[in-house]
Amino acid sequence: MSVLFTNALVVTMDDALTVHENGWVHVEGTTIAALGSGTPPEVPGAEIVDCGGDIVMPGMVNAHCHMGMSVFRGLGEDVDDRLYRYILPLERKFVSAEMVRVGSALSALEMIQGGITTVADMYYFETEVGDVCDKAGLRAIVGQTLADFDPPDHRNFDEGFARVEELVDRFAGHPLVMPSIAPHAPYSTGRETMARIALWSADHPDVPVQMHLAESSLEVKWALDTHGKSTVAVTAEAGLLRPNLICAHCLQLDDADIRMMSEHQVCVVTNPRSNGKAGRGIAPVEKMRNAGLPVGIGSDGAMSGNTLDLFSQFAPVSMFAKLFAGSRKPLPAVDVIRMATIEGARTLSLNLKTGSLEKGKQADLIRISLAAPRFHPIYDPYSALVFAAMPSDVTDTMVAGRWLMRERKVQTLDVGKTVADANQIARQFKAEMDRIDRQAGVEEVRP
Amino acid sequence: MSVLFTNALVVTMDDALTVHENGWVHVEGTTIAALGSGTPPEVPGAEIVDCGGDIVMPGMVNAHCHMGMSVFRGLGEDVDDRLYRYILPLERKFVSAEMVRVGSALSALEMIQGGITTVADMYYFETEVGDVCDKAGLRAIVGQTLADFDPPDHRNFDEGFARVEELVDRFAGHPLVMPSIAPHAPYSTGRETMARIALWSADHPDVPVQMHLAESSLEVKWALDTHGKSTVAVTAEAGLLRPNLICAHCLQLDDADIRMMSEHQVCVVTNPRSNGKAGRGIAPVEKMRNAGLPVGIGSDGAMSGNTLDLFSQFAPVSMFAKLFAGSRKPLPAVDVIRMATIEGARTLSLNLKTGSLEKGKQADLIRISLAAPRFHPIYDPYSALVFAAMPSDVTDTMVAGRWLMRERKVQTLDVGKTVADANQIARQFKAEMDRIDRQAGVEEVRP
Repeated sequence: MSVLFTNALVVTMDDALTVHENGWVHVEGTTIAALGSGTPPEVPGAEIVDCGGDIVMPGMVNAHCHMGMSVFRGLGEDVDDRLYRYILPLERKFVSAEMVRVGSALSALEMIQGGITTVADMYYFETEVGDVCDKAGLRAIVGQTLADFDPPDHRNFDEGFARVEELVDRFAGHPLVMPSIAPHAPYSTGRETMARIALWSADHPDVPVQMHLAESSLEVKWALDTHGKSTVAVTAEAGLLRPNLICAHCLQLDDADIRMMSEHQVCVVTNPRSNGKAGRGIAPVEKMRNAGLPVGIGSDGAMSGNTLDLFSQFAPVSMFAKLFAGSRKPLPAVDVIRMATIEGARTLSLNLKTGSLEKGKQADLIRISLAAPRFHPIYDPYSALVFAAMPSDVTDTMVAGRWLMRERKVQTLDVGKTVADANQIARQFKAEMDRIDRQAGVEEVRP
Repeated sequence: MSVLFTNALVVTMDDALTVHENGWVHVEGTTIAALGSGTPPEVPGAEIVDCGGDIVMPGMVNAHCHMGMSVFRGLGEDVDDRLYRYILPLERKFVSAEMVRVGSALSALEMIQGGITTVADMYYFETEVGDVCDKAGLRAIVGQTLADFDPPDHRNFDEGFARVEELVDRFAGHPLVMPSIAPHAPYSTGRETMARIALWSADHPDVPVQMHLAESSLEVKWALDTHGKSTVAVTAEAGLLRPNLICAHCLQLDDADIRMMSEHQVCVVTNPRSNGKAGRGIAPVEKMRNAGLPVGIGSDGAMSGNTLDLFSQFAPVSMFAKLFAGSRKPLPAVDVIRMATIEGARTLSLNLKTGSLEKGKQADLIRISLAAPRFHPIYDPYSALVFAAMPSDVTDTMVAGRWLMRERKVQTLDVGKTVADANQIARQFKAEMDRIDRQAGVEEVRP
C-alpha cells in the first residue's frame, strides 16, 4: 500500500523540529518512505490524499493508561473515599476477561478518535488488552499488573508471574503489541517482590516494566514507616530503578529522588488531569526534564482522567508547570507536543520506531483539521495544538501504514456495539453501587 | 414561533436541580412556556425537535471576555514579557472599530458553536461589540473599558466617560444587549476615578460595572505602596464595591478581602485557564462561594485563555479547587455546571431571565449530543458535562427562542468570511511582531 499525503502542514517533531508548510508525506507499506515540502514526488500507484492545509503530525503516545477501566468512567466522581467504597469492591466482583475486553475496546475506540497511535497500558487480564489492541490496530505496551491486594486475576505473586509469562509468550514477536510486567506500586508490591521482578527483568531486558511511583502521600508514609526512606529509594534498593522502568505519576519527589531516578535512567509519565482531579498534587515536570528524565504524558484510566485523548491533558500539564514556577514561560507549547509524541515514545523506548515523522520510521500519523474557528488566527502551530485543538479535530489516524480512522470513521472497531457493550456493564455497576449505598445506610452519598 | 423539544435529557439547573429523563421543553416565542417529562403536550403548529436522548440544558454564561481580542489568540504564547513586548504596542497601533468588529465576530461565532448564550464583555470600541452581539443574537453585557495607560479609544477619562454615555444611549432598552461601564483595574483606573465611577454608578444602578480585581501581585504591591492597604480595600474606599460590581479574576485575596466583598455583595468571575496559563495563581473559589459570593466562569480573552467555550474551563476550575484542598471532594461537578449556568447568570444579575430552564424564563438553551464514545458510560450527567463534553458536542444553540446554531450550522454569522477577516488582521500583526523582534536585535525570542 502506497499513500501520498499532499498539501499539509507537516509537523515532524524530528530533532530539528522541522515543519513543512505546503508539505507532503509518502507512506510505503508500514513506513514513511519520504517527506518534504513543495512539489510532491511522482509515486506511481499511490493513493493521493490532499490534506487541504490540515496538520499532519506524528500520532500521539498515551504513555499511561488502564484501558479496561473505561467502564468505570466518572464513577463516584467527587466522592472522597470512592476507591474503597466503590471501585475496589466493584473490581473484585466484576473484573473479568470479558469486562476487560469490553472496556479496552471502548478505550481503543476513543483513542483512535482522539489521535493516539501508541498506548502503554497496565491492568488485569492483559492478554485481552493485547488482543483488543491487535484488532484495533494500535501500537501498544500491555502490562500485566502484580499486586498484593487480592486483585481480580491472581491470588498471589506466583500466579501473577504465571500471567506475565503467558502474556510474554503470547505476544513475542508481535509487530505492534509488546508485553510488559507491571508491579502496581512499591507499597502494593513490596520490596522483596520488587527485587524478584528486578531479577526477572534482568533476564528479560526487552520487556518494559511499568509501575505507579510516588503517587500519594500514603505511599511516602509507607516507605518511611516500613523502610525509613523514600519510596524511590526503596525501589532503587530493590534493584528496580532500571532504564526500562516506566514510572507513572511521580508527584511526591524531592531533589534526591529526582537525582536517583536520573542516575538510573528511568522514564516518567505524568498524568496531570488524573492527579489534579484527585487533588493529589502537581508533578515537578520541569525539574524532572531538566534532570534529563524523559517525561511522557498519560491519560491514566478513564475512571481517574475521564477522557483518553492527550488534548485534554495539554492545558493541565502546561498550566501546572507555569503555576509551579509562577511564570508564563516554563514548558512552552512545543515541549508539550514533544512530550506527547517523540518524548513519549522515548519514555516507552519506542523512539526509534515512532513519535516523529522521519524517513524510515513507522507510519504512525494523524491528520488534524484546522477548520474550527477556535483555531484562528494561528501564530504558532504548537500553541494551536496545545490550547485550541480537540479530539473532534482529528480526521484520520494511521498506525504502521494502516488506516484506523478515515474522515472520522473508525475502520477497525464497531462504534455502536462497543459503546452498547460498555453501557451494559455499567448497568450492573450502578445496581451494585445502589446496593452498597443502601447497605451503608446512606440515602445519597454522591453529590 | 413555537418549538417543542422532545425525547431529551433535560438538565434544568433550577433550584431543585430537576433533571427530566425522557423530557420535553416547549418554547413559545422568546420564552419557555412549559417543560417536563413523559408524554409531551400537544402544541398545535409547533415544530417538533426529537432530541434522540441528547441533553437539553441552559445555554452557558461566559461571564468575562474580551471578544475583540480573539485576533490576538495565542500570540507570543510562553513569552514572559509578551504584554509589554507585543500586545500593548499592537493594541496602540491596530485596535480600531474595524478590528474590534472582526475580533468580536470571530468570538461570537466560536461561542455560539461552544454553547454560550450569554457573554459579559469588556474592551474598547464597545458599541461595535454590541452591534456584533445584536447581529449574532447573543445575550450580552458590553462594557466600555476606562484606563489610564493610553488605551486605543480614549485619551483621558473624560473621553472614556463620553464613550460610556454613547454606549448607554445606543443600547438603552435593547432586548439582549446591555451596556456596562468597565474600569480596567484599580491600579489602571486610580482611586479618584474609581470614586467618580462609583457616583456615576449610583445614578445608573441598572448598568453593571465590570473590573479586573486582585489579578496580580503587581496590583497588590500598587495598592500597598500607594494606599497602604489591599486592592479590595482601596476599591471599597472609593465606593466601588457595590452589588452591581462584577469582579474578574480575584486571585490575590485574603480572608478580610473576601469578607469585605461578601458584605458589599459584589459578584465574582473566575478565569482558571487564563490564570493558570499565565502562572498567576489559583482563585480561592471555594472560599468565595462559601462566603456567599456568586462565582461565574469566564474564558477571558482568547489572547489569554485561547478558547472561548466554558468546557475548556471546567477541568481547570474543578482541579484547582481540588488541588487547593488536597481532596477529590471540593467543587463537585454539579457546582461547576451551576457556575456555568444559573450562578453565572446571577453574577451578571441576569438570573431572573436566563441560566436555568424554568417556565417563563427566556428560551436560552443548548442541545448536547451524547454520541461520542468518550461520554460512556454515564454514571452522572454533571460529571459527563464537566469532564467529557466538548464544544463539538453542542449541536444547537438558541437565545430568546431564536436559533443561533442548528445541527452545527451557525445561522447568524458567515463562518468563512468571519475567519478570513480575522486571519487578514493577523497577517498585519505578524509583520509588526517581526519588526519588533528585529528592532530588539533578537533573531528569535519566541520559543
